[in-house]
Amino acid sequence: MSGRTEQRLSALRTRMKETGTGLVAIAPGSHMDWVLGFHPHPDERPCLLLIAPEREAFLMPALNAEGTREHTDIAFFDWSDDVGPVTALDAALEAIGASAPGHIALDETMRADFALLLLDALPAQTTRAFTSDTLGHLRMKKDVGEYALLKMNAAIADRAIQTAFSKIRTGMTENQLAAEIRAHFSSEGATPSFWIVGSGPNGAFPHHSASDRVIAEGDAIVIDIGGRKQGFPSDITRMAVVGLPPEGYGEIHTIVEKAVQAALRTARPGVLARQVDDAARKVIADAGYGQYFVHRTGHGMGIDGHEPPYITATSDTVLEEGMVFSIEPGIYLPGRFGIRLEEIVILRADNAEILSDLPRTAHVVQT
Amino acid sequence: MSGRTEQRLSALRTRMKETGTGLVAIAPGSHMDWVLGFHPHPDERPCLLLIAPEREAFLMPALNAEGTREHTDIAFFDWSDDVGPVTALDAALEAIGASAPGHIALDETMRADFALLLLDALPAQTTRAFTSDTLGHLRMKKDVGEYALLKMNAAIADRAIQTAFSKIRTGMTENQLAAEIRAHFSSEGATPSFWIVGSGPNGAFPHHSASDRVIAEGDAIVIDIGGRKQGFPSDITRMAVVGLPPEGYGEIHTIVEKAVQAALRTARPGVLARQVDDAARKVIADAGYGQYFVHRTGHGMGIDGHEPPYITATSDTVLEEGMVFSIEPGIYLPGRFGIRLEEIVILRADNAEILSDLPRTAHVVQT
Repeated sequence: MSGRTEQRLSALRTRMKETGTGLVAIAPGSHMDWVLGFHPHPDERPCLLLIAPEREAFLMPALNAEGTREHTDIAFFDWSDDVGPVTALDAALEAIGASAPGHIALDETMRADFALLLLDALPAQTTRAFTSDTLGHLRMKKDVGEYALLKMNAAIADRAIQTAFSKIRTGMTENQLAAEIRAHFSSEGATPSFWIVGSGPNGAFPHHSASDRVIAEGDAIVIDIGGRKQGFPSDITRMAVVGLPPEGYGEIHTIVEKAVQAALRTARPGVLARQVDDAARKVIADAGYGQYFVHRTGHGMGIDGHEPPYITATSDTVLEEGMVFSIEPGIYLPGRFGIRLEEIVILRADNAEILSDLPRTAHVVQT
Repeated sequence: MSGRTEQRLSALRTRMKETGTGLVAIAPGSHMDWVLGFHPHPDERPCLLLIAPEREAFLMPALNAEGTREHTDIAFFDWSDDVGPVTALDAALEAIGASAPGHIALDETMRADFALLLLDALPAQTTRAFTSDTLGHLRMKKDVGEYALLKMNAAIADRAIQTAFSKIRTGMTENQLAAEIRAHFSSEGATPSFWIVGSGPNGAFPHHSASDRVIAEGDAIVIDIGGRKQGFPSDITRMAVVGLPPEGYGEIHTIVEKAVQAALRTARPGVLARQVDDAARKVIADAGYGQYFVHRTGHGMGIDGHEPPYITATSDTVLEEGMVFSIEPGIYLPGRFGIRLEEIVILRADNAEILSDLPRTAHVVQT
């Protein structure tokens, strides 16, 4: 077992004790990546890392056992396609002393059939939570190595935005611009993850991706993109305008910018996540556009592009030094345009450090 | 609602009646693709298509509502990040008359938090199944349009195998050969999904992907690859040998080939899935290699690369005309080599039609 895995399991067990959790169950995915530095091939065969206060075990499809063995020395409880996983799961729970764990934390991202297989194997009175108080809590605070990988990815995303800005021409489609963005990520060895290019009225749909709409003079364009390299993501939103911006653009851009700044000023260790959301939301509401800011202010980012802490109006998560999350308020005017500005920040003792080096001003395309 | 969606919902409701199912709940993913021809952006926000015997509704994150509306006229029960999904879910269940559905079918692939949100909203005495008897049952039988897309993808995979065969050289790594395979899929507008290149002893790990092992004279190489185009996958395994094959290769290849043929002869409408597995397994066991065939004989394929029917030793699924699945027995000799041969077939009234046009003989690389 690597030193990092030992350290993270130990931190998790401390947290399990604090929360009265008798079992943490995680499936192949990002929680497992965080603990082990890898995960077995994820498919429809139940595969679970089961972590009890003293011991841990792997419920393992026999087919993946040999390939996984080279990465870990955790005890495997194999099951073959012929026999199914029930007996092996019971044996694994027994071996780690978790047949009646009292209270468990389930990987919220695991498949429903994995989760119900486990719940059905435990006593009916077992209570359950997801991982937000245990593993998810630990994952929110990034270490130096994680910061370095996020910072590297942020720099790639910055350059992808600059490439996008340089390629915008009237007459090209959103999809063509998106292809340039993907090509930039690929050229730096990153895998493009998403490429929102919302021009003109399309910008008013926060989750619009890219379409065959032709970019025209007078368009505002929301560009919200991200890629992945070395297991970590990026995520940034900037605005471009083609020639003369649409009516009202400047006023709205200024309001969104002020909302970003208000959130940046509020985000400090000890503050609640909802206070950061409130700060951004208040600026927009006070300006009379509250009904057009239709989403939360931000989301955490680490191994997953979206992970805790979520910066919502109702989150009582206490922000701590080392947490990484987005601040991305927006205003969406149906039929006209949308404006969103997004920074990824890491909380330091006395400020919110922005990972991007790009200004948030709108890039003006000369026509 | 498209004609295809109406037809599939109607078939699903017939099946719900037959199985006493009062609610089918599916999340953004392939089940939803099958019913609706699309799915909303999948993320951590609960999004469920709820299908009751008479009516259906969508639990919908407000952020995705506008973008999804252009694809469907199903009633939305929106929820915003501020408020959370519980109230909207209760309203949706009430509106479709499924607040106390008795017995439900859950999309087995949905996130655990989606599934438990729904289960917690239903009466405690609600019984549950996954979709294998309802939606999964219907999805197993492919229509003409699905067949055409699978056949097209199979032809691309055939050409990718031929490209791989033409590129093998001693001194290149498995990863280099895998890159050639991915490039082939991309050149035909397909997205490469997996690229197992198991050379020499690596071939003895059924789920080995590709490594920096250098391909050498005397290697047997398992090549198991697939891609996706127009929403459907491919999957094929063929063997190559570099120069003189390793000792015992010819005998083992013949046994695996006979196992494929036995399964092909057995696979007919009305036969149980386990009888097909038995047919392949018996050939290998009778030859004395039973312990080295460590996985099931096959898996269904449609929108998902792996889906029902699973061809296992214990499956009582009755095979029907129009079902598509793999037949892929293998023998894995630790430290020496592995051999797997894989066909995708569609069951016709009186035969199992193979989608690939490639022979299953080993390709010999001249050295």
